Amino acid sequence: MRPHSRILPCLISGLCLLQNINCGNILVWYTEGSHWINLKPVLDTLVDRGHHVTVLLPNASIFMDLNETTSYNYENFNVSLSTSDLKNAMERFFRFSMYEMDHMNSIEIFFKFFEIISKHLDMVLVYCDGLLHSEPVLDRLRKGKYDVIFVDPVYPCSELIAEMLDIPLVYTLRISMANAMERLCGQTPAPPSYVPGAMSKLTDNMTFSDRIKNFLFYMSQDAMSLYMWRRFDKYYSDYLGRPTTFCEMMGKADIWLIRTYWDFEYPRPFLPNFKYVGGIHCRPAKPLPKVLWRYSGEKPETLAPNTRLYDWMPQNDLLGHPKTKAFITHGGTNGIYEAIYHGVPMVGIPMFGDQSDNMVHMKSKGAAVIMDFNSMETKDLVDGLKAVINDPSYKENAMRLSRIHHDRPVHPRDEAVFWIEFVMRHKGAKHLRVQAHNLTWYQYHSLDVFAFLLAIIALVLFIFYKILKSCVVRCCFRSRSKKKKE
Amino acid sequence: MRPHSRILPCLISGLCLLQNINCGNILVWYTEGSHWINLKPVLDTLVDRGHHVTVLLPNASIFMDLNETTSYNYENFNVSLSTSDLKNAMERFFRFSMYEMDHMNSIEIFFKFFEIISKHLDMVLVYCDGLLHSEPVLDRLRKGKYDVIFVDPVYPCSELIAEMLDIPLVYTLRISMANAMERLCGQTPAPPSYVPGAMSKLTDNMTFSDRIKNFLFYMSQDAMSLYMWRRFDKYYSDYLGRPTTFCEMMGKADIWLIRTYWDFEYPRPFLPNFKYVGGIHCRPAKPLPKVLWRYSGEKPETLAPNTRLYDWMPQNDLLGHPKTKAFITHGGTNGIYEAIYHGVPMVGIPMFGDQSDNMVHMKSKGAAVIMDFNSMETKDLVDGLKAVINDPSYKENAMRLSRIHHDRPVHPRDEAVFWIEFVMRHKGAKHLRVQAHNLTWYQYHSLDVFAFLLAIIALVLFIFYKILKSCVVRCCFRSRSKKKKE
Repeated sequence: MRPHSRILPCLISGLCLLQNINCGNILVWYTEGSHWINLKPVLDTLVDRGHHVTVLLPNASIFMDLNETTSYNYENFNVSLSTSDLKNAMERFFRFSMYEMDHMNSIEIFFKFFEIISKHLDMVLVYCDGLLHSEPVLDRLRKGKYDVIFVDPVYPCSELIAEMLDIPLVYTLRISMANAMERLCGQTPAPPSYVPGAMSKLTDNMTFSDRIKNFLFYMSQDAMSLYMWRRFDKYYSDYLGRPTTFCEMMGKADIWLIRTYWDFEYPRPFLPNFKYVGGIHCRPAKPLPKVLWRYSGEKPETLAPNTRLYDWMPQNDLLGHPKTKAFITHGGTNGIYEAIYHGVPMVGIPMFGDQSDNMVHMKSKGAAVIMDFNSMETKDLVDGLKAVINDPSYKENAMRLSRIHHDRPVHPRDEAVFWIEFVMRHKGAKHLRVQAHNLTWYQYHSLDVFAFLLAIIALVLFIFYKILKSCVVRCCFRSRSKKKKE
Repeated sequence: MRPHSRILPCLISGLCLLQNINCGNILVWYTEGSHWINLKPVLDTLVDRGHHVTVLLPNASIFMDLNETTSYNYENFNVSLSTSDLKNAMERFFRFSMYEMDHMNSIEIFFKFFEIISKHLDMVLVYCDGLLHSEPVLDRLRKGKYDVIFVDPVYPCSELIAEMLDIPLVYTLRISMANAMERLCGQTPAPPSYVPGAMSKLTDNMTFSDRIKNFLFYMSQDAMSLYMWRRFDKYYSDYLGRPTTFCEMMGKADIWLIRTYWDFEYPRPFLPNFKYVGGIHCRPAKPLPKVLWRYSGEKPETLAPNTRLYDWMPQNDLLGHPKTKAFITHGGTNGIYEAIYHGVPMVGIPMFGDQSDNMVHMKSKGAAVIMDFNSMETKDLVDGLKAVINDPSYKENAMRLSRIHHDRPVHPRDEAVFWIEFVMRHKGAKHLRVQAHNLTWYQYHSLDVFAFLLAIIALVLFIFYKILKSCVVRCCFRSRSKKKKE
């Protein structure tokens, strides 16, 4: 935040001086899909508050669009990939998650998943490489006097940009697989006994066998993550010219904005630089036309005349309508949060990614039933709908979650913006960063202390044994000598 | 919160309807010394917001005073103790901490400390017993339709009152020894590798020997706490007519309001129902007369004519004066927080309780120097003062802490009030309570899972060994048989 040098652009953007805030320069790294959709409400609020938002935009992107809005600045860079490569990769993932997985055994699923994720990570690295070889862009970034870089860490590279520009790094994240990023790199504690690994489909109320499953899930995901991240370790070390790891670089992030809250999450320990800001995109509903039906295919002949078809409709406004009794959802976090916001019980038909796990959260909190996408029949859906509509407990629980969601000291969007502006004002938030980052894993778990104390105890026992032995020997020897003398 | 039944008293107290809040009935359990002083700013704010605050006031109390304010209601009860018993106990503790300790070895200190704390806990139990045998008071409490009980847990009993009245329980706490209450009963995690035990005088940046010291400190304090709390375990079990522990009952608390913040604390993991609201009592300074000197003894003859004597003076206003260069303090949290609020570096002369540990926090953050009360000479104090006044780093660090203190999304007093009102609105905050409360210590640390997995591995290895052995035997046997046949 350099108030003097910013006065002119601030006056142009208009709002920052009126609102008595210093406006700053915010850099945003490329991301895709719902990750980008989730960044936007925060970016829009930052722009409204007078900040300059510059988005790093590659030539290959499905969701990010140069023409989408004029309120952001764009820095374009080229990558050795096309948008259709990206689309093919995404389709491959959907095909696997929604159809192929059903005809595979666990080992086949594991290897196929491993292969897909590996290819995805290789592709992600192409974006990083594209930017870091665009010298003119880098030059402009270095001269741009940025105050913070704001990113979803699922697309790595921001750690190197933050290091290169020497600016604070703020993450916004839904989850990583088994919370590997948050635990291994962010150092947030997660006892496997009551914190179910993200995407494990377990709840915080675990039986002995659940706890074994969770423990093994954490171990396998840790091994897989650390193995898969090796490509980033190498890339980061090569670029910086010193040995480092992806995780070490991630650990430098100032703030982690987690896109959930205790209406959705099971209560768990966390760190002072982790802020739970779930529901950023939620907003009150606007009025609706009388009947609605979103459908982009051909109009069925059997359709009743009182059913209208729309290519797209405002899901949030529909969920907020007082006559809405239930929400049939694929279980994405955004949809779930809109249902929580408006207190609507859910029928979940999860398809891929975190959707199954999300629906388990809602089911365990009594606000949803879950269908199996590949095996469900019409009757199952009807029964599920009847259950959430007719059994009042679903509505009551959805309303309870809604009350928890709304009743917080600060609105999630304001809280997210507050912490981004905080690191801009203070050039970071090192006072929230735990010393755990400077410990090895065995130091963190006090294994060296434990081993040392055990060694001391063993030594004391050994000396005690030796002394006792020598006493016994001496006593026996004396008594024998005495006997001999007698 | 029962809005309808509350309308009349609310209208009388005036503010709750205007401010669009439902006013409620808040019960406060007896506490003493700085614990009571720290409750008051929150209670006053609650009264200002239209709530009814009822304080449980025993006939023996030093700090709580029936005539102090008319804004609280009081429920009086008798205890088999006099105020002078209380004063004697307090004086005994001060004498030990400030003078006697210096002439004792570590073992003598441990046993004397153990004896003093034991007597204190016995005395505390007298208060609980006094209330629970005042049937008319209990009867009024049962009819009083209270919405929450708000307490400092250092004086136990509130857990039983909350259970008896079936109302939420909110704690406000500075620290317990080695955070035993927070860790063992509140289930907040504290890896001994980087979370120094409260009052250990260690920082979060520990050497190997510091980590050993911290590990042993936790272990010894856990053993001591659990041993000392046995009197409460028995009392609580007897009263409830079922086996329970003090810790189990404490674990039911809905919210823990911790009276520090990350300006003072080392960053550490915590739980969703732990809220760091340090600095509740801090406020802007008012103007001062020109020179000031608080002194209640006889006026020294050598006193310069430009030094004025006062029996009492407003410490906060003095700290907020722009000409104040340094603060000589005994290291109590309230004084330290006023210094942080106004960004004044400190010279600490800690005396007892948490004061030494508090000053270590400030020293490690570069905002203070520490004196030894019993060995310091005039020159040491002068040198210390010169250091914090002339070395700009002390002022810079004090200002940095001040900026951290002021720059939060919500004022600490508002945050404390928010969470008290939250549990009143929602009849608790169970959604913030971790499942760790329902696990044994070995389940929490996954030791049973670990043992099971080790057993499986051992079994597999054993079977593998047996099969291998039988194969070898069979092969050898065959080859021998063959040789014999040949």
